[in-house]
Amino acid sequence: MTIEEEKRRTVVTIYGQQYTIVGTEKSEHVKSVAKLVDNKMKEIKKVNPYLDTTKLAVLTSVNIVDEYIKLKEKVEQLEAEKNER
Amino acid sequence: MTIEEEKRRTVVTIYGQQYTIVGTEKSEHVKSVAKLVDNKMKEIKKVNPYLDTTKLAVLTSVNIVDEYIKLKEKVEQLEAEKNER
Repeated sequence: MTIEEEKRRTVVTIYGQQYTIVGTEKSEHVKSVAKLVDNKMKEIKKVNPYLDTTKLAVLTSVNIVDEYIKLKEKVEQLEAEKNER
Repeated sequence: MTIEEEKRRTVVTIYGQQYTIVGTEKSEHVKSVAKLVDNKMKEIKKVNPYLDTTKLAVLTSVNIVDEYIKLKEKVEQLEAEKNER
């Protein structure tokens, strides 16, 4: 997904800032993704109240990538099990 | 993972800014997570050169959550297949 001034765009609010998200996904999907990022940023802000928005957003990315990698390992494990059948 | 002035911390550089990441994970894991975020931010910056760092970091989170949700759906599918056995 990218931010552009083109068609198929969804306007979302994340951490008080509006973003126009362009992509092939449905607006509903984009909105739920944005909501998840917004929630995650607010959650991390509670634990690190002194963080500025940039650092907060970067730390949010770090947390999500961490969860992504763990999930990726789970997928690899499940696929390995599947191939053993 | 949180940013704090405590033990078990790993210093990483993401998009030219230093972060001290505190967590139970090994430093190697934290460094690879940081590297992935850094690469993703640079990749998105190329497509959206006019974005400021905060918006870039938020958009990076949006992209990672999008990938996370797709991976999550794959896990659910693989687990459903597993339970059908």
